[in-house]
Amino acid sequence: MRILVTNCNTTVAMTEESCARARAAAGPGTEIVGLTPRWGPESAEGWVDSFLSAAAVLDLLRDLDEPFDAVVMAGFGEHGREGARELLGVPVVDITEAAAHLACLLGRRYGVVTTLERSCGQIEDSLLTAGVAQHCAAVVATGLGVLELADEPRVLAAVTAAGARARQAGAEVLVLGCAGMTRLMQTAAAELGMPVVDGVAAAVKLAESLVGLGLTTSRVGSYATPLSKRRSWSPPPDEPAAGPRAGEGRRPR
Amino acid sequence: MRILVTNCNTTVAMTEESCARARAAAGPGTEIVGLTPRWGPESAEGWVDSFLSAAAVLDLLRDLDEPFDAVVMAGFGEHGREGARELLGVPVVDITEAAAHLACLLGRRYGVVTTLERSCGQIEDSLLTAGVAQHCAAVVATGLGVLELADEPRVLAAVTAAGARARQAGAEVLVLGCAGMTRLMQTAAAELGMPVVDGVAAAVKLAESLVGLGLTTSRVGSYATPLSKRRSWSPPPDEPAAGPRAGEGRRPR
Amino acid sequence: MRILVTNCNTTVAMTEESCARARAAAGPGTEIVGLTPRWGPESAEGWVDSFLSAAAVLDLLRDLDEPFDAVVMAGFGEHGREGARELLGVPVVDITEAAAHLACLLGRRYGVVTTLERSCGQIEDSLLTAGVAQHCAAVVATGLGVLELADEPRVLAAVTAAGARARQAGAEVLVLGCAGMTRLMQTAAAELGMPVVDGVAAAVKLAESLVGLGLTTSRVGSYATPLSKRRSWSPPPDEPAAGPRAGEGRRPR
Amino acid sequence: MRILVTNCNTTVAMTEESCARARAAAGPGTEIVGLTPRWGPESAEGWVDSFLSAAAVLDLLRDLDEPFDAVVMAGFGEHGREGARELLGVPVVDITEAAAHLACLLGRRYGVVTTLERSCGQIEDSLLTAGVAQHCAAVVATGLGVLELADEPRVLAAVTAAGARARQAGAEVLVLGCAGMTRLMQTAAAELGMPVVDGVAAAVKLAESLVGLGLTTSRVGSYATPLSKRRSWSPPPDEPAAGPRAGEGRRPR
Amino acid sequence: MRILVTNCNTTVAMTEESCARARAAAGPGTEIVGLTPRWGPESAEGWVDSFLSAAAVLDLLRDLDEPFDAVVMAGFGEHGREGARELLGVPVVDITEAAAHLACLLGRRYGVVTTLERSCGQIEDSLLTAGVAQHCAAVVATGLGVLELADEPRVLAAVTAAGARARQAGAEVLVLGCAGMTRLMQTAAAELGMPVVDGVAAAVKLAESLVGLGLTTSRVGSYATPLSKRRSWSPPPDEPAAGPRAGEGRRPR
Amino acid sequence: MRILVTNCNTTVAMTEESCARARAAAGPGTEIVGLTPRWGPESAEGWVDSFLSAAAVLDLLRDLDEPFDAVVMAGFGEHGREGARELLGVPVVDITEAAAHLACLLGRRYGVVTTLERSCGQIEDSLLTAGVAQHCAAVVATGLGVLELADEPRVLAAVTAAGARARQAGAEVLVLGCAGMTRLMQTAAAELGMPVVDGVAAAVKLAESLVGLGLTTSRVGSYATPLSKRRSWSPPPDEPAAGPRAGEGRRPR
Repeated sequence: MRILVTNCNTTVAMTEESCARARAAAGPGTEIVGLTPRWGPESAEGWVDSFLSAAAVLDLLRDLDEPFDAVVMAGFGEHGREGARELLGVPVVDITEAAAHLACLLGRRYGVVTTLERSCGQIEDSLLTAGVAQHCAAVVATGLGVLELADEPRVLAAVTAAGARARQAGAEVLVLGCAGMTRLMQTAAAELGMPVVDGVAAAVKLAESLVGLGLTTSRVGSYATPLSKRRSWSPPPDEPAAGPRAGEGRRPR
Repeated sequence: MRILVTNCNTTVAMTEESCARARAAAGPGTEIVGLTPRWGPESAEGWVDSFLSAAAVLDLLRDLDEPFDAVVMAGFGEHGREGARELLGVPVVDITEAAAHLACLLGRRYGVVTTLERSCGQIEDSLLTAGVAQHCAAVVATGLGVLELADEPRVLAAVTAAGARARQAGAEVLVLGCAGMTRLMQTAAAELGMPVVDGVAAAVKLAESLVGLGLTTSRVGSYATPLSKRRSWSPPPDEPAAGPRAGEGRRPR
Repeated sequence: MRILVTNCNTTVAMTEESCARARAAAGPGTEIVGLTPRWGPESAEGWVDSFLSAAAVLDLLRDLDEPFDAVVMAGFGEHGREGARELLGVPVVDITEAAAHLACLLGRRYGVVTTLERSCGQIEDSLLTAGVAQHCAAVVATGLGVLELADEPRVLAAVTAAGARARQAGAEVLVLGCAGMTRLMQTAAAELGMPVVDGVAAAVKLAESLVGLGLTTSRVGSYATPLSKRRSWSPPPDEPAAGPRAGEGRRPR
Repeated sequence: MRILVTNCNTTVAMTEESCARARAAAGPGTEIVGLTPRWGPESAEGWVDSFLSAAAVLDLLRDLDEPFDAVVMAGFGEHGREGARELLGVPVVDITEAAAHLACLLGRRYGVVTTLERSCGQIEDSLLTAGVAQHCAAVVATGLGVLELADEPRVLAAVTAAGARARQAGAEVLVLGCAGMTRLMQTAAAELGMPVVDGVAAAVKLAESLVGLGLTTSRVGSYATPLSKRRSWSPPPDEPAAGPRAGEGRRPR
Repeated sequence: MRILVTNCNTTVAMTEESCARARAAAGPGTEIVGLTPRWGPESAEGWVDSFLSAAAVLDLLRDLDEPFDAVVMAGFGEHGREGARELLGVPVVDITEAAAHLACLLGRRYGVVTTLERSCGQIEDSLLTAGVAQHCAAVVATGLGVLELADEPRVLAAVTAAGARARQAGAEVLVLGCAGMTRLMQTAAAELGMPVVDGVAAAVKLAESLVGLGLTTSRVGSYATPLSKRRSWSPPPDEPAAGPRAGEGRRPR
Repeated sequence: MRILVTNCNTTVAMTEESCARARAAAGPGTEIVGLTPRWGPESAEGWVDSFLSAAAVLDLLRDLDEPFDAVVMAGFGEHGREGARELLGVPVVDITEAAAHLACLLGRRYGVVTTLERSCGQIEDSLLTAGVAQHCAAVVATGLGVLELADEPRVLAAVTAAGARARQAGAEVLVLGCAGMTRLMQTAAAELGMPVVDGVAAAVKLAESLVGLGLTTSRVGSYATPLSKRRSWSPPPDEPAAGPRAGEGRRPR
């Protein structure tokens, strides 16, 4: 079978990293195809990035030529999965919910470790609307941004501390809420004696499961096929978009 | 004070209608300025539309020249409010949450009446993540699409039936979950003896309230100022977007 | 418009302080009229005080000669709002719920800072039954009684510590759960970088909002007009009340 | 042991009826003493009545000369229990929570049948703040007022219908949410095959249980002894109360 | 890999049926081994059966000679999964939770259709403690016992009616809460336009997923290895068990 | 009346201890009869023990010759109560829920103190499915196993620390979640100023209450009389059970 893995940002290296993790998890008959949005944020950290990412990923999905069997949305805590479910006739699995689903099978409560505190609420909302928040003991931030992930000893200490805080809040399993710290997370979790679930791997297995069982998204109710209507996915040519720029919060007066 | 009312779709007539409702609600010193996204769906009905709308509205908000004091996001049940809160230094009020906040002050439980069943779940999620779902007794669809709203007797019957179902579920106040049926909703609610809260009007008053008290979005935690990074809001010029087209759910194999 | 602000206790100076805060928040066309219960506790700290206060405030409201447009009930965490809603034909806003409603618009979670621990549970119940508890991260007591509020450095330290505890529990906005510490609370919150919502100010704006939109309490279900019946609001003259005295908890055997 | 049963209204016949039910439930060594508030509503139906009742009952409890071992508060869904817990050194059991506690032991879900719809929300709030709402499947009103309870066949039909609605909502046990329909309720429930729990009887047994185990209200946190302060329980003599009158909801303008 | 499928009752034909469904779902490299408890109920319908089944299944699992990679517990709504997690070093997946996990990926809410009403509460509790109850819209009984499943038209009508009730309660996906009606359920669901998830199939895929990712139960907290102690799994030989008999509820006096 | 107290394990000394506590709590006319399961674990610590215990206790209850009026199930956090309710015509009270019910009457929140962390989740689930979890502030483990309870100063320090943690989480009442530490718990709680509820005592009083009121388990819905069918409660004689042995978690490959 053929599974598309959609990155949530425009950084091709991250798409490749997700694909590598997806391929490591995939069964023998599964082909993983990575997709990078043509537009959107270079990394998704916060709500603006997340909504921008959702639209860019949906733009990517709405016009694909090649056949595929399932989609894995590889943005932890990012928006868009319900839209992809409406849009596509094949199963859609978001890595956030996927990690939580498997974690629930491994311990009575799970915790999520992520980078920045600004992402915690977004992840909590994503778990809540996916119906898997009940057994989430805590979403804990290491406080490290993506660029700081190079300093290994510092990262290991931060990840271990965050895992220990999740443990203290009741977590028995850890979910990896960001990509860059995979290897160190494994080290830290081993120290804490807790299994670690990676969302990309979990989502690939769940997608394979759904495809294997011939199941796909219900068209009854929430995820009915989108109505036919005029939708424009970019500014009109005569009124060009402002283009990429660094977006700061602004106080207009 | 100056309040921007952002439509969630590209239909200028709907922006104008929202502005009319906003102006009817606004205090004497309040100027209402309507904004229509340059791109996005012509109407927002479902998750794809909602995420597309969120990005298009954020695109609109990120680069405004004129000063303003608050933003009212006029898409009932649509995504994006948390992104606008990150982006802007002024208060942001979404009409979904606004209607619920005022409804909670008028009765022990409220109900939402909307058009299509496909919107109910999205509205429920929006109320849930806004923290005002606890007193929502029901979100009820009339089953009428936007285009069917012209047949007045039929619409009145459908709206009255939906309101009665909300009442039976415990609602003591009704929230108007769509624009086109405002007047008939008032008629139906009067018959049921229940107050009706319109989200646009509610959001304008809440925005005025926050501005009047000098309050704005917290920068601590979830809605910290967006990180400075490369974000592109449209496809690159050398790889043009597919442009507007009717998006059907597709089954690739 | 004319808004009554009802104090929850018999201390006129506190009525005046609430009115001052209400006037500072009110719009240009709003007249604030303060009302002090003729009986009840001199300050409301605990459940006995709260129920006594509720009856005394309702006694005040049931027989007013003057016209007014809305009522603000100025007792943080005190009982009675649902009774006032039954009794009156105009909107009723309680400062507890009001602060929470606005706080929800400013951050993903809010915290309440109050004086004594004995009040925390009462405030939690008030938020819960008002339907706004979901986004309350914590209700934190400073441990300072009303009489101890004079020692400024000590109060500032206690308030800052309580705010920091609310922050640690996830609060991004603070709600001021008592009157005496307003100014210091602002100082502490500024240090913590969090907005502070004052219940009296919030309630005045919400009352103005409802009046401005022509909305009032639903008569369907919970808040139907009280049934006509014999109610006596004080002991019979031949069997006089025990009169004011210091009420200690008593152990009869 | 000696248990006080406090009526929530001023009607002595209802006090006597509650006492009769209490005595039928009490163990051999238990003396039941009925207390009727000196002031308050003649019957408690709605929030105004409930808050008035709470103050009048607390007034009754604060100055008793005789020794007693526990208090049963006999107003279904009425306020005041937390205040009595603060005030007294002996256990306090409210009939609302008592019925729910025992009902939880008899079936997986319970339902409450009461008179008027206006009481349903108040009862729900009372169960919620008592911590026993989780297994409440429904609070159902018969729609019959207290005065209509004389027409037996009509009442039986209404009670059976209400019980059947509770059953349909999942209830396996019924709680009697009002006094006047006790006997018919038993008939209806027998027809439905469901046990019926009467709050007064349940509260007497729970009060006996607590006294028998030497347990009383915790003084730590919420129910600490009331602070010593000036509290007046009735209007000052120079400014007499308006006295009993029929209180209608009023619209002042 | 090798997956054990444990039946919850002693009826070998049912073990075989579960194995057939498991094999139909399993991937090419997966061997399914069915296990039938040596003791327990001949079918599990109710709490007594469920607890008896739990012990008998754990008895089966504690002393296996052969190696295996995961266990699927094939009793819908039956107890025991947490015990198996303690006992074994390999992943354990219960078909109740498994069906719910996959159903959450296919629609916004799911419903469960089962045989007798007596099973509904047990299933609800199982979903609740597994952390997947939030998106369960309803657990609906057809009212048909296992022996009545032969009358096809009647069963089809009952299953369709139950599915429609789940749909009306908000379900967009159906979970098959009993074995005997699989084929008719598919027919009914197709008519309702809803996907159907079978627990055995779902559990096999989830077990394969966990094994494939090298994940197993956390030993931290709830599912620590059982303490070494004396446990007897049957009555002592000198005091023989009463043996199989028809167990009726008994009223001893 | 005659109340059976069923121990959850095979250790007669613990049955006797529970009976002693039961007798101390029982009213004058109540006879306490202790029952020890003929098989099962020697002590119940964890899920395997709990499910094994549930079956052994149900085996005990299904075939009693003597008449009795109620059953108290004396295993804190152990499974089985719903099965006993199905099986018997007399009321069944589990000590876990019993302690919680009474604790709710004594303070706004309660906490549970138990021995090992492995039991906390099981207790939480038991409270949740009994409908009394809402006011549980925390379930705290002392970290001491049953065998370590001899070292009094160490136990007192651990119990006091656990009680203080429960207090800090909001508990105003403590529930004793294990038998061996009763006396020290009282000492610790007195120091913390909190009442302590013992589950056995609470259950006896609740059982006496139900019997006194003539109430017993509902047969409607969940706890209908078990269906008549073949159930075997032990391995067949020709295929003997493995007998008692120390059960370690095993990793078969």
